[in-house]
Amino acid sequence: MKILLNNIDLNEALFDNSNIGFVPTMGSLHDGHVSLIKKSLKLSNKTIVSIFVNPKQFNNKEDYKKYPRNIKKDLKILEKLKVDFVYLPKIKDIYKGKNKIKIKLNKQDKILCAKHRKGHFEGVIDVMTRLTKIVNPSKIFMGEKDLQQLLLVKRFVEKDFKSKIIYCKTIRDRNKLALSSRNMLLNKNSLNKAGKIAKSLIIFKKKLSNNKNLKDLIFIKKNELKKKYDIKIDYLELRNTENLKLTNKIKNAKIFIAYYINKVRLIDNF
Amino acid sequence: MKILLNNIDLNEALFDNSNIGFVPTMGSLHDGHVSLIKKSLKLSNKTIVSIFVNPKQFNNKEDYKKYPRNIKKDLKILEKLKVDFVYLPKIKDIYKGKNKIKIKLNKQDKILCAKHRKGHFEGVIDVMTRLTKIVNPSKIFMGEKDLQQLLLVKRFVEKDFKSKIIYCKTIRDRNKLALSSRNMLLNKNSLNKAGKIAKSLIIFKKKLSNNKNLKDLIFIKKNELKKKYDIKIDYLELRNTENLKLTNKIKNAKIFIAYYINKVRLIDNF
Repeated sequence: MKILLNNIDLNEALFDNSNIGFVPTMGSLHDGHVSLIKKSLKLSNKTIVSIFVNPKQFNNKEDYKKYPRNIKKDLKILEKLKVDFVYLPKIKDIYKGKNKIKIKLNKQDKILCAKHRKGHFEGVIDVMTRLTKIVNPSKIFMGEKDLQQLLLVKRFVEKDFKSKIIYCKTIRDRNKLALSSRNMLLNKNSLNKAGKIAKSLIIFKKKLSNNKNLKDLIFIKKNELKKKYDIKIDYLELRNTENLKLTNKIKNAKIFIAYYINKVRLIDNF
Repeated sequence: MKILLNNIDLNEALFDNSNIGFVPTMGSLHDGHVSLIKKSLKLSNKTIVSIFVNPKQFNNKEDYKKYPRNIKKDLKILEKLKVDFVYLPKIKDIYKGKNKIKIKLNKQDKILCAKHRKGHFEGVIDVMTRLTKIVNPSKIFMGEKDLQQLLLVKRFVEKDFKSKIIYCKTIRDRNKLALSSRNMLLNKNSLNKAGKIAKSLIIFKKKLSNNKNLKDLIFIKKNELKKKYDIKIDYLELRNTENLKLTNKIKNAKIFIAYYINKVRLIDNF
């Protein structure tokens, strides 16, 4: 029994009681999602997971169509985790006529995936704004694999809502490949390659800490990966983890990569 | 796990989750309060009990001062019942400078206790409006012993808030005296008398159902009680239970009484 001695106590107790943790997903859940959900279950009174493949964030129609969907398996996973609520909105639940949101990225935001997937983050921020308004959570759990997405959503959502974005570590399979729903689109051979690329970059990153010609080394590495694994690389860059600016310093920096393997676009950071 | 297929589902699940049951009291809890609280615990996700001796509803300063207060015992009772929250506001928590509420009763409301305790219900409605605004409950549990209060609060609160007033049966001791915090102000002799008055009215009411000169019978009963128990009677009237209008019909009617015994004012209805 909680004793509330004044209105501040009361507001905290009664309305923090709606301490809702929110895990927005596009379904095809994997252990990366599971780790977000477990964190939410731990930190929130109620956890709500949404599954919504948001058409507006796909700059490519084909990509939207082929995005993996496994709702039955997803529900089994969520049931087992004892999630409180699963939210399966229709497109009209999210995009009701009235509120048109116009998202404008700054010039300095148009880097990494923002440069290579036109309109993608505008779509992500739009849907995240709408979802946050609808769900009104205390906390939103997002994975660090999509660090650029996380930072942008954090900036836009925390500006307008009380919801806090909670960072969650990237989960990797035993080959060190970062978990992603898109991995399901890869055959064994490509999965194998992607794992090797991840491992190679982990080793590369470790070496970097004792080296100085960073820009050159990264350029060489990029060409090496391209040739060795026959992949198209959108970017391989060292950037500051807070403002995502290009940097020559190892401290607070990560290597960001986006590449196509077998027509599937994967991203990661180390 | 609840699956929410659209925004209506979502709103019901997440925000009905704050299905809060509210039992407003002035403390000195007895089994009447306990029955309200048990009903709230049964019907609500969270139960909040307030203890606030509201100065504004006492038309008599002396009455306010001598109103019984037993906060330690109250907290023990609430703890045992596993109430979620006890709200113990200070006067300033309720009456913050800004919102002045002007409650105006209709002419036809100025009957029964409204006639005999000037300003009393205005104070009750005022504090209930403020408490409802602060607590924002789904349900407010009130006892039928104070039926006039219940009906007035219902009208005023349900007009402005989503909260529903829930009627709860009057609880009586083994002598049939309706439980009231004011009973604590009575000595054994007066308690005994009050029990006899209640029993006498229960029998009287049963006889009434087969009789026709209702007005006369009630007038005679009033005088009988006055003389027999040496009490001052504010009113003894048969009224409709929905609109509280004087009636000559037994159907949907109750006998309402207010009287002073040993300077303590008791009310009841049968």
